[in-house]
Order: sequence, then structure tokens, then C-alpha cells
Amino acid sequence: MPRPIRAVVNPTAILGNVNKIKQLLGAGQVMPVVKANAYGHGLERVLEGLKNSDALAILEIDGAARLRQLGWTKPIVLLEGCFDEADLHKATELHCDWVVHNQAQLEDLEKLAALNNSFKPRIFLKMNTGMNRLGLQAPEMPAAITWLDEFTSRLGWPTPVLMTHFANADEAEPRTRQPMAQAQFNNLMRFKPAHWQSSLGNSAGSLNFPELAGDIARPGIAVYGATPGPHAAANYGLKPAMTFISQIIAIQHIEAGDRVGYGSRWQADRAGRIAVVACGYADGYPRHAPDGTPTFVEGHVAPVVGRVSMDMMTIDITSIPDARVGSAVELWGEHIPVDVVADRCGTIGYELLCAIAPRVPFQVVSKD
Amino acid sequence: MPRPIRAVVNPTAILGNVNKIKQLLGAGQVMPVVKANAYGHGLERVLEGLKNSDALAILEIDGAARLRQLGWTKPIVLLEGCFDEADLHKATELHCDWVVHNQAQLEDLEKLAALNNSFKPRIFLKMNTGMNRLGLQAPEMPAAITWLDEFTSRLGWPTPVLMTHFANADEAEPRTRQPMAQAQFNNLMRFKPAHWQSSLGNSAGSLNFPELAGDIARPGIAVYGATPGPHAAANYGLKPAMTFISQIIAIQHIEAGDRVGYGSRWQADRAGRIAVVACGYADGYPRHAPDGTPTFVEGHVAPVVGRVSMDMMTIDITSIPDARVGSAVELWGEHIPVDVVADRCGTIGYELLCAIAPRVPFQVVSKD
Repeated sequence: MPRPIRAVVNPTAILGNVNKIKQLLGAGQVMPVVKANAYGHGLERVLEGLKNSDALAILEIDGAARLRQLGWTKPIVLLEGCFDEADLHKATELHCDWVVHNQAQLEDLEKLAALNNSFKPRIFLKMNTGMNRLGLQAPEMPAAITWLDEFTSRLGWPTPVLMTHFANADEAEPRTRQPMAQAQFNNLMRFKPAHWQSSLGNSAGSLNFPELAGDIARPGIAVYGATPGPHAAANYGLKPAMTFISQIIAIQHIEAGDRVGYGSRWQADRAGRIAVVACGYADGYPRHAPDGTPTFVEGHVAPVVGRVSMDMMTIDITSIPDARVGSAVELWGEHIPVDVVADRCGTIGYELLCAIAPRVPFQVVSKD
Repeated sequence: MPRPIRAVVNPTAILGNVNKIKQLLGAGQVMPVVKANAYGHGLERVLEGLKNSDALAILEIDGAARLRQLGWTKPIVLLEGCFDEADLHKATELHCDWVVHNQAQLEDLEKLAALNNSFKPRIFLKMNTGMNRLGLQAPEMPAAITWLDEFTSRLGWPTPVLMTHFANADEAEPRTRQPMAQAQFNNLMRFKPAHWQSSLGNSAGSLNFPELAGDIARPGIAVYGATPGPHAAANYGLKPAMTFISQIIAIQHIEAGDRVGYGSRWQADRAGRIAVVACGYADGYPRHAPDGTPTFVEGHVAPVVGRVSMDMMTIDITSIPDARVGSAVELWGEHIPVDVVADRCGTIGYELLCAIAPRVPFQVVSKD
């Protein structure tokens, strides 16, 4: 038997989450983001759950090729566009659409047009509205839009889409996030030609301000049933698509005063039972998870005690008499939202989901 | 072109690090730890650098199979032993030795003996000397040792090894770590039969107290040229085995007062240039890296500014006029020790090395 750890992916949860987001958005299209191998879930494991989506957005061109191989025939959009000329060829071969976020990428379109490909991509023109990461600046926009509009209509390419990315849509405080998102929306919309579509809503944007999401929303993490904030996902009716579980491989009986693990971080104030779980930071569980981070064992919450080590972690099972060697331990999933673990560790669910290590075996189990 | 990010592994650095540790240990044997796919470096990429080692220690039985496939003929030790009966068979087929850390695993040896395999494994009996993770407790030791000594000599198996694991050998403060390691050493040694060998030294133990490492040291992270503490590895003469690099994919000119990235964490106090680097937490760079975490661009240190996002990060290149789109950016490696990045992020190099994501391509480059 390999180590008893595994990640279980539930495509039915993804199907439900996409439908929930569609409801919120009303008429808008939904283009789930599947970069980073579907946020760590595995493209081949989530695709069935994404079948009602209008398009998929991805970063890695190899991932796009994989999606076509797996039978996805609807549009695919490359979120950072093409990195060089070889990419341009590959993207058209794969019938991908893509984002243009700088002048060099705009100029590349001319090169592509000279090749007279039969496939005509849809271009998503990205504006920097305050994130200061990718995108054209406001002063560059009028000329870029005029040029791209003329270029695409001359070549018979689809009408482009104007897009931007929210910087603060996931702020916990609605009074802060609402005006910031509205300002980015207004900043984009003043440039939008009437016949172009727009694309703004990331997960937080789609959930918190569906009215600012534009014609094509690009939810990412929400599709997988997580979203920043400890219990936010459940409040929106989203279900976790991944359950990360392992087992107890050893139990230590300790006395008051005994210490556990590296750096002797945790010290017992009473006698008790400590379970060693076959999961460590080399599996993707965060090393800096503090004492008290919840896990779920035999129907009860068991807190992490002592520093997570490379292949093992220790939890306090003193008050769970049923816990024994071989008991399943849920690290996150149905009972412990990944966002709760993330919140304890000062990060967000995305980081944890993407960080599941290659040595962890996956399993697919569909259930309502 | 795929995204311009990659991890470059240097087997020559590993060779030098193993030799350096051998020098420190004198007569003792060196058994490098290669669990978690050689701490994220890839078994097939590091094996050439490990050729002078006496044995290898690993956790995953699939990894042991891979080592045999790659041509490793010297001993392999399974660090958590066998998880069930199928493992026992696989371990003997692969000619592995293994650790026994609890009573159930001791009893399993009887089952194995009944099968009359031709391969006779060497058993590493693990004692819990204060880590409270794996290992037999002191009161269980005398009976276990007597039984195992009789059992192995009756069956003609190799003489067992007595082992334990240091809990605090990497404490920054020598006055704290020295007595704690000495206490664990003494705790183990009082049980050691004269004809058995011992195994104690992990990386920190081997480097800081070679006299307490026992007959067979088990260095892990040090083999890969890292060790807890910002510049500790270089002080020991160790060289980094991995360089994690990417490129600048966009540059934003900003004004005083502009903010960068998610949550608008960083605000410019002057006009400047911000480079967007094709590396994010979905590649394995820590999301919680604070402003000021160093990267290396065109011969200069460039600090992280703004929160690391999923596929990109932003660095301040205002004072590096040579930096341009396409410039290489070292995230850690030759110029920026992984332990410096880890220290800024409140963790240790191990976690970062193990967390390189599957989507990052690897390359092997041997150099002195």
C-alpha cells in the first residue's frame, strides 16, 4: 500500500457550483478558469463538472492542448496570451482565443494575419484599471481599440472583448471593496465600444457584484467550492470539489509537560493521546499551520498540535476515544472548509488547493 | 514556448555537499534522505550526485522502486517502514531495509519470516526520545531490543540499527539545541547493545553535532545545499542544488501613490518601474512573501512589491535600468539562497523546495 493519503475530487460539486454562479449572473456567460491544472484538481477530473460552461480560461498552452485532447470543443481563452511566435501558431492550431495585454502582443497579431490561417481567434484586450500587473494603461487604450476594431473587422475575426481584473473584489469589508470595484468597472467601461463585449468578474467579483461582472464572467476558485473568507463559500451555496484525507499511522500517549514535534512547539498541560497523521508539508499541507488548526476524525474536530513536519503531522485526539490507528483524518473538504484551514494559516484556499504535491494520489468520486 | 519559468538542478552541487558532510562526519556513514522526490528535485536528476553515498533513505515505496529502476544497487531504507503486508512483500522484492517504529510493525516481522524470503532486510528500530511522533517509548525498548536481537540472529538477518530523530537540532541558539540533542542522544544510547549500530544525525544534527550523529547519519536538506537559517548553508560550505528562475513578461511604469496587485498591499512613494514576473504561488513561490523579499535580476537584487498572485509576481526594478521584458529573474538559487526567501516567509527552505509545482519544467545543468 502506498501511504494512506489521497485527494478526492467530486465533479458533481463543480457542476452545482457552476450552476449556482450562472444563477447569480443571470444573462451573463460563464467562463471558468482552469489554470494550474484546474487549481490543483486535475483537468481530466473536473471537465465533466464544467460541461455547462460557455468557455474555459487557462494560462498554460499545454493545458489548452490537454483540454482539446479530452474532448472540449467550446472556446478556450489563453489568459496571458501568447508568449512568442511559436505560441501564436500553437494557439491557432488548438482553436484558442487569447488575451492581449501589451503593445508587443498587439503587433504580433499582424504577423499572424500574414499567415492567412483559417481559424479566426477572438481577442480579449486587457486594460490595467488599477491592479498594475498586466494590461494597457488608459492613455494607450483609444488607439489600441481603434486599431484592433478595424483590424478584426477587416479580417473577419470575431468582435474583440474588453477585459480587466479586479484588485480588491475579495476584500472582507464590503464598504471598501464595492467602491474600488465600481471605480475599476467605470474606468474600463468609458473605453468600451458599444458593439464589444466586456469581461470583468473573477470569483469574488461574480459573487459579490454580479452587476459588475460584464458579459463574460471568469470565476476561478468559486467553481471549486472555495472563496476567500472562512465560511464564505458555504454562505454562497458552493460545495467543496476536493476532500483531502489521510489516516492515523501512530498514536503516542503523553503526560502533562511532554512536548510534541520539531522545535517542541506544543506542550501538553495534561495527559492525553496524540495521533500521528500521514500528511506533511511535502504533501502540500501548510507547514505553518498553527496549533488549533482543525482536522476531522471519527465525527469530531481534532486540532493540530505541534509543528507540521515534512511527512507527518500531529493532532490531539484525547477527547475522541474512537480514533485509532487507521482512522480517516479529513484535512479539508466536506467537514473542514479549505478556507478555514487557509484562514488559520494566513493564506487563501487557492494556495492550498494548488499546492497538493505530485506524490498524493487522486481519486474521483461523484456525489450530490 | 511554454511560460518562461523553470527549475534547474545541479547534480555537481549535490556531489560536493555529500562530500562536505562526509568530511564533517569522519568515519560515519552517510545515508542521504531522498523522500518527497528528493525534496522536490527529482530522483532521476539527483542520483548522479549521490553516487558516493553509502545508502539512501526514503519514505515512499514507489520512490524505492524508482531508485532500483534508475540503477541504484546500494541499500535503501524505508523511513516509516511498511504500512501493511503488501508493503512487506514489495520491500523485500526491492531489497529494501526499513524502520520499525511501533509494536505492530515488530509483529509483522514474524509474518515475513514465515515466508522464507531469500532477501534478509536490515531493521532500523526507532525510539521516541522526545519528538513524540514515531518510535517506541523508553519502557518498551528493553523487550523490543531483546526480541529483535534474538529474532534477527536466529534468521541470519543483518544486525539491527538503533535510531531516533532530533527534535531541536536546528534551533538557531546553540545553547538551547546542544543540551537537547545531547539528552536525546543519551536517552537512546543507554539502550544500545554494543554490537548494534546507531543512526541519529539529520541535517542539522550532522552539521552541528557530528559527534552525536551515530554510525549512520541521515542528512536531508543539507544534501540539497540548504539548511535552516538565512545564510547557514553557505557558512557550512554547501552549494544550492536548485535554481528557480523565470523572466519578466511585462513592465508597468507607475507614479507616486499608485498601488500594485491584489489587496493593493504596496503603494509607491515615488515614480518607478514595476516588473511582472511569470511566477506565482501556483508555481510554488510562497503567496505570503512580504514586500522586500529579494529576487535577482541583471546582476542586482530586486525586491518583491505587492502580493504574489497565482501566476505572476511583481518586483521593483526602478534602480535596475538593464531590466527589460525577457530578463531572467532568479527567485532562489546561486545568488538568493532559498533559506533567505524562506526566512522572509516564516518557513524553511524544505517547504519551498518541495512545493515547486508540477507545471514548472525542470532542467539539469552540471557545473562546479
